[in-house]
Amino acid sequence: MSSGHEGQSATPSRRHVLGAAVGAAAAVAVAGTGGYVAGGASSSSETGERQTTGRVPFYDPTHQAGIATPAQDRLAFAAFDLTGFDRGAVMAMLGAWSAASARMTAGLPIGPTETLPQSPPIDTGEALGLPPANLTVTVGFGASMFDDRFGLADRMPAGLRPIGELPGDAFDPRRTGGDLCVQACSDDPQVAFHVIRNLARIGRGTCVMRWSQLGFGRTSSTSQAQKTPRNLMGFKDGTRNIKDEQAEDLEHFVWVGEETDQPWMVGGSYLVARRIQMLIEAWDADYIADQEQIFGRYKNSGAPLTGHHEFDPPRFDAVHHDGSPVIATDAHIRLAAPEHNGGEKLLRRGYSYTDGTDPVTGALDAGLFFIAFQQDPHRQFARIQRRLGLRDLLNEYIVHRGGGEFAVPPGISGPGDWFGRALFTK
Amino acid sequence: MSSGHEGQSATPSRRHVLGAAVGAAAAVAVAGTGGYVAGGASSSSETGERQTTGRVPFYDPTHQAGIATPAQDRLAFAAFDLTGFDRGAVMAMLGAWSAASARMTAGLPIGPTETLPQSPPIDTGEALGLPPANLTVTVGFGASMFDDRFGLADRMPAGLRPIGELPGDAFDPRRTGGDLCVQACSDDPQVAFHVIRNLARIGRGTCVMRWSQLGFGRTSSTSQAQKTPRNLMGFKDGTRNIKDEQAEDLEHFVWVGEETDQPWMVGGSYLVARRIQMLIEAWDADYIADQEQIFGRYKNSGAPLTGHHEFDPPRFDAVHHDGSPVIATDAHIRLAAPEHNGGEKLLRRGYSYTDGTDPVTGALDAGLFFIAFQQDPHRQFARIQRRLGLRDLLNEYIVHRGGGEFAVPPGISGPGDWFGRALFTK
Repeated sequence: MSSGHEGQSATPSRRHVLGAAVGAAAAVAVAGTGGYVAGGASSSSETGERQTTGRVPFYDPTHQAGIATPAQDRLAFAAFDLTGFDRGAVMAMLGAWSAASARMTAGLPIGPTETLPQSPPIDTGEALGLPPANLTVTVGFGASMFDDRFGLADRMPAGLRPIGELPGDAFDPRRTGGDLCVQACSDDPQVAFHVIRNLARIGRGTCVMRWSQLGFGRTSSTSQAQKTPRNLMGFKDGTRNIKDEQAEDLEHFVWVGEETDQPWMVGGSYLVARRIQMLIEAWDADYIADQEQIFGRYKNSGAPLTGHHEFDPPRFDAVHHDGSPVIATDAHIRLAAPEHNGGEKLLRRGYSYTDGTDPVTGALDAGLFFIAFQQDPHRQFARIQRRLGLRDLLNEYIVHRGGGEFAVPPGISGPGDWFGRALFTK
Repeated sequence: MSSGHEGQSATPSRRHVLGAAVGAAAAVAVAGTGGYVAGGASSSSETGERQTTGRVPFYDPTHQAGIATPAQDRLAFAAFDLTGFDRGAVMAMLGAWSAASARMTAGLPIGPTETLPQSPPIDTGEALGLPPANLTVTVGFGASMFDDRFGLADRMPAGLRPIGELPGDAFDPRRTGGDLCVQACSDDPQVAFHVIRNLARIGRGTCVMRWSQLGFGRTSSTSQAQKTPRNLMGFKDGTRNIKDEQAEDLEHFVWVGEETDQPWMVGGSYLVARRIQMLIEAWDADYIADQEQIFGRYKNSGAPLTGHHEFDPPRFDAVHHDGSPVIATDAHIRLAAPEHNGGEKLLRRGYSYTDGTDPVTGALDAGLFFIAFQQDPHRQFARIQRRLGLRDLLNEYIVHRGGGEFAVPPGISGPGDWFGRALFTK
């Protein structure tokens, strides 16, 4: 009810949101003592019903949620560019984003709804009354933020140095890069959209949205409790993904450790996003046997061509009578396999997307919004993708249209902490 | 397993799909004897969990499903243009669409998955193993189909005659019109998308997709068992919508009866779609009191400004001490009310959408994909919208960017019947 004059501004003031965060902190603290239904795996495809009341704790001093969290069904993703040169404004925005995220992940609006009538609403309102449905909000920093605008030039971690163009890239600059990214995942798409909209609104005057992407269905499992979903090619891909139960894999492949050149990144990770358009009409005209050769898996069962069940390990040395390999030399499953990439793996959290039709051809613009988390994008994503981009049989049917790489700082310990605090203050 | 040579073509042959439909019919018949969990209302916003195993019967000799069916959570919508002049090809396509829809609404792929390896898959596969989640497939015909290409010129119902431009329309031709439309609604967006993709694939050579739209969250309740959801303005709109329990309203306002000039439409309805972009950034800067005046409702409770609870009937004659009306003269709730539109009502089945950001301004392209069903678009939608377009206070914040009007033929009685059969054969 305070500061009616502040409320006259067109955006919710940061002070207002941060003030609200005190209340949120209290609410979250109470919930933390036992109120959480901790992020149970959920998928409509498995049990025929799903819990949308689940809450994933926002505060965690080590890691941000939304990485090793069981993959939620829906995604709203956005990249933002910072518009000014004011380091303090960026810090204040990240503080307000953190406070708002703490509240939204607890199922609360970003601030009080009982404001003075002669002020704009603090929360935009479309998620009022909706449970958070396992909402997570994950923030990352792009390489462009580490230029000379904010005094961060000597803080850029080596993992963010440019990957450069890889074979098969055909990036649209309007869907590529950004100073910041926000990944909002929830089992309810309205809840995920609400996050992007409200963080954009809090950021007004400090950042503008550069591009955004909705994902309507997850294509990855990140928990052993989840079944592997199908991508829009009709295949189960990512069967061998890192699962959140695999603590050792998370340590070796996902979380940044003491080896980093930038201590503020310890406990963080790197997010690589790629908007991978599928040439669906061409794919749908291809023979099943050819589709199965391309992936190296059976379409119906998801089993490798050398096995009978989805989780049978592929036998890459198996040959036909004539000596030719059962899993083709350039099959996706072979080229992407850790065995052929120096043991490297990624934690994938991709989503299927569709953005209508091409106005000229009438072809569906649809595919995979690929997201992967890793300890080092050069050692992991770039290495694997360089091989895939050159040789993968799948390349005939996909085009990488955009994306970005972002350094995801560690977790937020509590109400006094915020996204990237160690980057700005230590 | 038959006709391997047919399978060599790039699209699933109609004979193949129609053949498969015999199996589907059997499966559906079995399910019909008790296997259906008939379209229970479902929403993540109400109970914290939702059923995705529900099935809505496809066959109904009177009405198509997807109209008086409790509104599912997600939408995939597409408009198609017919490319040739072959009446028989259109009939065959509608037959194949019906057979495929019968299978998909029963949770089955559109044809066998065990095909010859040297043929393209019949079903694209991304919904394999997913329950239908209350899927409905609803097909309509646009006025342009009744030109001289298919011998249907004397079959166009009067309800389809052009509405013409209404105040506030700013249509993008790339998002407007179409010879045919398909509305696929499900609680699982992957299931809804699968329908559009597979019907487009069946139609290849006969039709091309003109435009399409995903809706990520329903904005209407069509059952008394459902709570009213919030639109992206944060308001509960459509509280007074027609509900599927209101048999009398359905007869008076939704279903085409014997009064029609075209007997093939008896039992059908008219679908009006509008892509209504919301100027979200401007809206979010408006004061709450002003937002509430515009709608004529309180934002938090959804109650009319003359009441305390959402379902309190608005009292349009209530005045303040100074004699001014409590619900403004041009408030949305007043202008849209049946009391002020000759008693006319619509059955609304709208969905929130977002399609990324404007590349120039960075503003979110988001809003309401409005769908309404009615007995006569001229008597109902056009009459109401003409008033709204001229005077509605909401017009400052919305733009009608596209859409279409479609005649939705009656239901499909069984495996021998198909979308629009009476139009083509009687």
